[in-house]
Amino acid sequence: MTPLQPPPAEPGMLLGDVDTPALILDLDAFETNLDFVDRMLGNSGVRLRPHAKTHKCAVIAHIQIERGAVGQCVQKVSEAEALVWGGVRDVLVSNEIVGAQKLARLAALGHIATIGVCVDSHSQVDALQTAAGQAGVTINVLVEINAGGNRCGVSPGADAVQVARHIAGSPNLVFDGLQAYHGSAQHLRTPAERQQAIAHATDCARQTVTMLRPEGIECRTIAGAGTGSFQNELQSGVFNELQLGSYIFMDADYARNLDESGEPAAQFQQSLFVLSTVMSVPRPGTAVVDAGHKALPVDSGLPLIWNRPGITYIDASDEHGKLECAREASALAEGEKLLLVPGHCDPTVDRYDWYVCTRKGRVEGLWPIAARGAMR
Amino acid sequence: MTPLQPPPAEPGMLLGDVDTPALILDLDAFETNLDFVDRMLGNSGVRLRPHAKTHKCAVIAHIQIERGAVGQCVQKVSEAEALVWGGVRDVLVSNEIVGAQKLARLAALGHIATIGVCVDSHSQVDALQTAAGQAGVTINVLVEINAGGNRCGVSPGADAVQVARHIAGSPNLVFDGLQAYHGSAQHLRTPAERQQAIAHATDCARQTVTMLRPEGIECRTIAGAGTGSFQNELQSGVFNELQLGSYIFMDADYARNLDESGEPAAQFQQSLFVLSTVMSVPRPGTAVVDAGHKALPVDSGLPLIWNRPGITYIDASDEHGKLECAREASALAEGEKLLLVPGHCDPTVDRYDWYVCTRKGRVEGLWPIAARGAMR
Repeated sequence: MTPLQPPPAEPGMLLGDVDTPALILDLDAFETNLDFVDRMLGNSGVRLRPHAKTHKCAVIAHIQIERGAVGQCVQKVSEAEALVWGGVRDVLVSNEIVGAQKLARLAALGHIATIGVCVDSHSQVDALQTAAGQAGVTINVLVEINAGGNRCGVSPGADAVQVARHIAGSPNLVFDGLQAYHGSAQHLRTPAERQQAIAHATDCARQTVTMLRPEGIECRTIAGAGTGSFQNELQSGVFNELQLGSYIFMDADYARNLDESGEPAAQFQQSLFVLSTVMSVPRPGTAVVDAGHKALPVDSGLPLIWNRPGITYIDASDEHGKLECAREASALAEGEKLLLVPGHCDPTVDRYDWYVCTRKGRVEGLWPIAARGAMR
Repeated sequence: MTPLQPPPAEPGMLLGDVDTPALILDLDAFETNLDFVDRMLGNSGVRLRPHAKTHKCAVIAHIQIERGAVGQCVQKVSEAEALVWGGVRDVLVSNEIVGAQKLARLAALGHIATIGVCVDSHSQVDALQTAAGQAGVTINVLVEINAGGNRCGVSPGADAVQVARHIAGSPNLVFDGLQAYHGSAQHLRTPAERQQAIAHATDCARQTVTMLRPEGIECRTIAGAGTGSFQNELQSGVFNELQLGSYIFMDADYARNLDESGEPAAQFQQSLFVLSTVMSVPRPGTAVVDAGHKALPVDSGLPLIWNRPGITYIDASDEHGKLECAREASALAEGEKLLLVPGHCDPTVDRYDWYVCTRKGRVEGLWPIAARGAMR
């Protein structure tokens, strides 16, 4: 049978002794990022429900909840299971769930936790009511509206109102509000572009809330936002629950977002790395590390090399990363270990069974990535 | 703690009842692919050592060995462990292994299996001798030469001869021959390009063999080849061990390789799929499936839709795949299940814990992907 991969480190070890490739979490940077969002939210009254599709780890969920988060978001029922089984008591699946097997598993969680889910069609409401009714539980439901991302979501306004009414009339469902997430807005590079996109999402949500009110249907929750845009949703006066995920880790792609002055926004610190080993120095100016795209998914671009000027990761194959070394860079030696900044944190985390948590260059602990591979 | 993801199916189930996303292996197509390579090798005397970095599964390894393969290739020590612990008795790590922890684990396997590994430097030979000596085992060693791929590998000729001599003089190491794999040649689109690249690799190997002979150093093994180019290595008169991996599965990228007439080469059948569910049909002409780039890595391009004309997978986000539906295509319904052809088989397999093996639309069995996530 298939065992887990054993952890690549032990507590107390020096970072340089960790076997590779390993997923490293710098706890000081991680906590600085948590502090920053706590400070931004302050006493705004806007709730934080961080997205666990980024971290997939009950340990991190509990740290966020301890600091005041109301619960967690996930995308998949199997992620919800991993968190609830790990003691998280309030989970929103910020996504549509289709299929009787999945709905039965989701409803089962309703016996031991507060469960929410999104819908964007009437047939989903019917199927959800059937599953919740059969399990004898109550599920909170958000109507996902298309807030400009053009992925899932009903049209804001009349269509959304009809679905909300359908939910409100379903005995085992509670209409909780609107999901108005605009995913692609997170990666628009300038603050003006992000602001414009979220202004549109806000209008979509506001319009729908306004149309629901005469029906006697109140929105307890207007949810959305991500790491790239959350200050806009925070200041919108409409959104009251934010679903940031990547802010705890950051990645090479988010680092390309700019601030007002055209400089990298740099609100958050890079806390997530993949430690790799130089496995070959075959020719001058070239080296190969033991972390390719199986270790560092490249959907949002190649990884960056951390704190090693003149060294560039130029090509990823399955198990190899090819490095180019500028003439002025100090030479790489076989066996040298390098920290890489993932191109995209979410799919990178999902490749590992363990966080190797370090502080000031020493391993403080190992945290299991309980929802690793939880795609269903 | 972190359990495995449970299997998404049970034996006997209809394919349409399998939960999604799920990795599907069509056994008829898989066996047709195995038959094809067996027929090509015929009585050529050229050995087959299939690459398990593709399948990561001891069950598949044993099927290949039962048909005459001499053993398996892997890229990582943890992959070798998964196979040896699963009963495979002859494993070559077709790669350099650097670091004392990994070398100790590799040498430990030498007590219970025949183990080979590649080197491309003198320091690697020294470290390998130390590990093998401490464990009291003998390890077979191939010198990897740069056969044109410009990734790892010493220069062919004099440099390679020096490393071979170093191995031959190491008491716990056996010089076994040359690794002359040309990875990027597999994906050159025309037969002429592939033939030219492998002719170069063959020259590199032949030159080195010729220079080793006066030293009294014989090459038992000249290894290389992959699914895209193997007929060239087979006919080279120099290579005697082929390391094909993807031939058992195929993927959307390999399907872009052409034959002499400029048509898709189509030597192999597509046997590997990801089953997905339409989770939202939010607007006419659009649908969203529950398999994004966490389920289908996009390093070699987007997945294709199988047997559903007019439907195109146009964008992958973490957990969503956006589909475009041509006007003439029959409409997609919420809950409909679609088979997707992965862009790249190797990293896709590595996302799953189980193969759901089907024959004529029914689940015949579940095979664990024992080396899933085995990156170290």
